[in-house]
Amino acid sequence: MQFTSEQRLDDVLEREFTLAEIPGILWTPASASTPVPLILLGHPPLGLQKMYPRLLARARHTAAEGYAAATIELPWSGERPRSAAAEQARADLHRALEAGEPVDDEIVDRLILPLVDKAVPEWRAALDALLALPEIGGPVGYSGGVIAIGTRLAVVEPRISAAVLFAGSFVPRTIVEEARQVTIPLHVLLQWDDEGNDRQMALDLFDAFGSKEKTLHANMGGHTGVPQHAGDDGNRFFARHLK
Amino acid sequence: MQFTSEQRLDDVLEREFTLAEIPGILWTPASASTPVPLILLGHPPLGLQKMYPRLLARARHTAAEGYAAATIELPWSGERPRSAAAEQARADLHRALEAGEPVDDEIVDRLILPLVDKAVPEWRAALDALLALPEIGGPVGYSGGVIAIGTRLAVVEPRISAAVLFAGSFVPRTIVEEARQVTIPLHVLLQWDDEGNDRQMALDLFDAFGSKEKTLHANMGGHTGVPQHAGDDGNRFFARHLK
Repeated sequence: MQFTSEQRLDDVLEREFTLAEIPGILWTPASASTPVPLILLGHPPLGLQKMYPRLLARARHTAAEGYAAATIELPWSGERPRSAAAEQARADLHRALEAGEPVDDEIVDRLILPLVDKAVPEWRAALDALLALPEIGGPVGYSGGVIAIGTRLAVVEPRISAAVLFAGSFVPRTIVEEARQVTIPLHVLLQWDDEGNDRQMALDLFDAFGSKEKTLHANMGGHTGVPQHAGDDGNRFFARHLK
Repeated sequence: MQFTSEQRLDDVLEREFTLAEIPGILWTPASASTPVPLILLGHPPLGLQKMYPRLLARARHTAAEGYAAATIELPWSGERPRSAAAEQARADLHRALEAGEPVDDEIVDRLILPLVDKAVPEWRAALDALLALPEIGGPVGYSGGVIAIGTRLAVVEPRISAAVLFAGSFVPRTIVEEARQVTIPLHVLLQWDDEGNDRQMALDLFDAFGSKEKTLHANMGGHTGVPQHAGDDGNRFFARHLK
């Protein structure tokens, strides 16, 4: 892990890094004197640069709560090499959505499963590097989308203790099956009128999670309309489980 | 409205009353010097006496937030005269549940609609009497079940500004239709594995509410397993909308 930039933004220290050619960003509370818990910030595959304003806002809230926040670029996004298969799957999805057709399971599988397969080991490698830093202790939370990535991480990565998952993308059936193995506390956010996912699939996924403690918070509006109070609820969830 | 008893419980003043032979309880913050908002505490038709410990716990939280809380006995419950038709509907419901059969719409209608038709005017009469007291100002919230009663009240009673509704009982289809006329902010609690209702019906009802601001909070467990943090979220909802 190589840090490539460092800047102080009010009470937050922001450092960009690369890890085996994957770009990432780490935010830590500037005032922390002891190792702090870490929250991994998930995001849709639109590129870190495009997502930066929203990620920074989330990181500021996270740092204000006394946690570090970190994120990495997803496969085939931002500055990373493209995948022809992923582009094709995305084009097929958009064609189905624009035609008002139901989205075929086969398209969802082609779109999401390779992303999950490639991204999850990368997030685990980032976790190795981040937890080796003296300023980061644990426990670790995952927050955000892609919900299929968060689900797989919750199954395979024992260092993640709790997750706030954003039901904002399509979910392959096999991931719904994997969800039964998840046992960590979960807090799932669902935008009821989200154009970018299937509400019933999101409810099926929520139902499938094996966790004894899981909460679904559904709010009105589309993908980016998550109300402030819903974010605050996520903070309180982490306060209960990461301290 | 006649007060029949009065006792001080720590920081809460509890007064029992009767209103046209309907028993009720009013709790006010003992320390309030100005008129306070009011939250009507809904409850299942099990009788005020049986529900008293849970109602008192909710009233204590409500008073601690600076609101008055009040409730009245539901029709055909507690000390009030029974209804042969209601008893028959309840027996038919239990028979279906015990046999593991789907609960027929016709049974739900017979069980819930007469209760809604009789209870809602009684709650409105209680509201008239309560708002005439100098220690109660407004605005008014409704909190709890029976969700069909809360829904009808939200449609017909303009003095109710916001509601925390508990999806803990069966819902007639006609009430789902009425829900489209509801416009006040709503916070709906759903126990995901509640044995006493139909989850899909609860989701359909949530979807039907016409309110621009509505939130669904679903938690694991059965009817009485609402976690503490879910109650806290309801308090924050009222703090946003009743102040």
